[in-house]
Amino acid sequence: MNCIGHIQQGLWQHPRDRSTEYCNLDHWVDLAKMLERGLFDGLFLADVLGIYDVHGGSPAPAIRNAVQVPVGEPMLLVPAMAHATTHLGFGVTANLSYELPFSFARRMSTLDHLTRGRIGWNVVTGYLDSAAHAAGLDRQVAHDDRYDVADEYMQVVYKLWEGSWADDAVQADRRTTGAYANPDRVRTMHHAGPHYRMDAVHLCEPSLQRTPVLYQAGSSGRGKRFAAANAECVFLNGQAKPHVRAIVDDIRIGAVEQGRQAGDILAFVGATIVVAETEALAQAKLADYRRYASGEAALVHASASMGINLDAYAMDEPIQVVETQAIVSNLEAVARSAPLMTKRKLLERMTLGSRQPPIVGSPSCIADELIAWVEEAGVDGFVLSRTVTPECFADFIDLVVPELQKRGAYKEAYSPGTLRSKLFGAGDRLPPTHPAAAYRWSAA
Amino acid sequence: MNCIGHIQQGLWQHPRDRSTEYCNLDHWVDLAKMLERGLFDGLFLADVLGIYDVHGGSPAPAIRNAVQVPVGEPMLLVPAMAHATTHLGFGVTANLSYELPFSFARRMSTLDHLTRGRIGWNVVTGYLDSAAHAAGLDRQVAHDDRYDVADEYMQVVYKLWEGSWADDAVQADRRTTGAYANPDRVRTMHHAGPHYRMDAVHLCEPSLQRTPVLYQAGSSGRGKRFAAANAECVFLNGQAKPHVRAIVDDIRIGAVEQGRQAGDILAFVGATIVVAETEALAQAKLADYRRYASGEAALVHASASMGINLDAYAMDEPIQVVETQAIVSNLEAVARSAPLMTKRKLLERMTLGSRQPPIVGSPSCIADELIAWVEEAGVDGFVLSRTVTPECFADFIDLVVPELQKRGAYKEAYSPGTLRSKLFGAGDRLPPTHPAAAYRWSAA
Repeated sequence: MNCIGHIQQGLWQHPRDRSTEYCNLDHWVDLAKMLERGLFDGLFLADVLGIYDVHGGSPAPAIRNAVQVPVGEPMLLVPAMAHATTHLGFGVTANLSYELPFSFARRMSTLDHLTRGRIGWNVVTGYLDSAAHAAGLDRQVAHDDRYDVADEYMQVVYKLWEGSWADDAVQADRRTTGAYANPDRVRTMHHAGPHYRMDAVHLCEPSLQRTPVLYQAGSSGRGKRFAAANAECVFLNGQAKPHVRAIVDDIRIGAVEQGRQAGDILAFVGATIVVAETEALAQAKLADYRRYASGEAALVHASASMGINLDAYAMDEPIQVVETQAIVSNLEAVARSAPLMTKRKLLERMTLGSRQPPIVGSPSCIADELIAWVEEAGVDGFVLSRTVTPECFADFIDLVVPELQKRGAYKEAYSPGTLRSKLFGAGDRLPPTHPAAAYRWSAA
Repeated sequence: MNCIGHIQQGLWQHPRDRSTEYCNLDHWVDLAKMLERGLFDGLFLADVLGIYDVHGGSPAPAIRNAVQVPVGEPMLLVPAMAHATTHLGFGVTANLSYELPFSFARRMSTLDHLTRGRIGWNVVTGYLDSAAHAAGLDRQVAHDDRYDVADEYMQVVYKLWEGSWADDAVQADRRTTGAYANPDRVRTMHHAGPHYRMDAVHLCEPSLQRTPVLYQAGSSGRGKRFAAANAECVFLNGQAKPHVRAIVDDIRIGAVEQGRQAGDILAFVGATIVVAETEALAQAKLADYRRYASGEAALVHASASMGINLDAYAMDEPIQVVETQAIVSNLEAVARSAPLMTKRKLLERMTLGSRQPPIVGSPSCIADELIAWVEEAGVDGFVLSRTVTPECFADFIDLVVPELQKRGAYKEAYSPGTLRSKLFGAGDRLPPTHPAAAYRWSAA
């Protein structure tokens, strides 16, 4: 995330942490090169439009602790990193609630061109009233309604990406006709729905992937329905493998019900890893990191995610799970442990500045645990969150990747091609079973 | 412009032209490095949101001739070029009509951070009904009303850029308090006007320039009023020096009337240059370039700029200047020559694919003409449009820059600092006489 405190709050204070260099392009270019050296599929950029002002009803604790504020626009980091790499993919979070589909579609197509087909879009609808206030609204659209808007938004951008320019529209004929494109193979796309109207030619010529690789992280009931219909990659968080497996299965069953293949969706689970040469050294590293973790900052983040002001609770008071318009799956996670969950228990869990507990150990122990996640939870991979950065990624690449490779559980080299073809091994474009394919305009 | 045919239409067909590589970051990074070698102040990116469908009432001729379509998002080119350069500034055109001030302000602050204070914004309001249709509207907002909306938009973004974070808000205190920022020095900005409402903390910490260097190109009566109030750099086009001088004088008088200094505004005039070692070689180069220029494409561009369908005119029929909602100053230019202006005469002028006639000659002759523009029209510099690219810029740097330097009319080295301090020599921030300064929150 183009910010200082992403998930593991407080760790920016560690003397070796470089998160405060987030405004320096060298910082990002060096990171991208490192991840490519480690054969990572991609670098994923989270984002939030709005400020965390739920905890204590004020943005002050978020500002003091740099909890996802300040936060820069994520797309703008990609071009410099793309120029310095060849294979690394880039997943960018973009909130569709506050931008027109027409101009957003152009941004993503431009990125797909500039990265030569290495861009992905994490589709989010936002979950903060502060963003709605910034946009001049009294409050955000209700949780499930946001997904209805999103369904329609997807239709509009699919039309532009897949349907406006035929595959053979571009001729670039310098010598005979002087035609750059064939106007008979470029068309105006029309849309008139409850939330969007549009009559437009897409402004970009066809890029390699057309539609960016679609990521989605919703694990509420409505979010899973959206993912089943649209997502190619889903992100999940959860501490219990059976629970994560149930969500993955649900989404894949939903996809099949909609005529897609189960294998059209890859599942990635969030992971925080602290690794060192030995178990003892890893525990020592964890202890060192923990000295900088901030419980207050973690509560600020949790309050915003759940839409519950945890500042209003006494330490041992059970947290009341009421319906809010924030991230419903976060509430469900608390609800699963209610009525026992208290602020004290949350804090005890958040020893590294986040509700996500770290996986700690030697390279072999980390490899065991990651492989167990794949086998038991049915996930296809991981989204590593940063701890002390960039050393956490260097550690993973130098210690864990070779161990995984030794076990045949990690690639030895990149395959060629776009992000989508690297992930699915089946071409640059969405498969014909994806709903966007209905808008496709093939070569004559 | 992140496109194939920018101003001199048709030249992309020249065998040495590289415009069709606009989707390749190397193309842009090489260009940026070349311009920095030539000590250019900046690289300016035009943009248009929408398609040119006025000529013949159809987008087909624009698509066939690549007249500013396809066109990629311009901001996304900047980070890769910024990473490869140190001094070069970047002016980016962004249309404020279709994006919320809150999210736009974050984009520009992010670019100011990533470029270390080398970003400028060319404020435009659009002039195409096709963009309005793409945004779900029946037609665009009327010309002068667009500037009323723009005036309010500027207020909102000034509040975010200048007023939300005090100069001393960021503490980044790793050691004692653990505070990244002081919440008492970050505030929610409020706005409630006829066009915009907002209650928001700006998401970005203070960047070097805060407000990007403000460019503006309107030379209609209402456009000049907007420029006098807000612009730091104005772009003008015009073939007669006295006419350009009158516009520059008007804007500067307007600025002084609003409490600004005449020197707070720099004027740049559009120029197309064809240069070679000798006059004869330059004429030969021009003749070679002309073989690829497209009159049809130039008419497509002119029709959209004026809002007049030139396709409906016979060659010798006088062009009727009616009021449209497009670029009013373009209409005025035609009106000045009416009732004599015909399509045939326009085409005779547009020999290099544009209404802007080239300045052609030896380095010494080009230098004479540029200096005459400075002396007689009172301009401060030039915006060079591309002909056959990138050789047109290499030619200028290798042939014209040394000649201008010999005459003391071109810098010998960059001065240090931000784009604004390079241009004005008076610090990174807007001067206290600029209206944005009213929202400033200085250190305690």
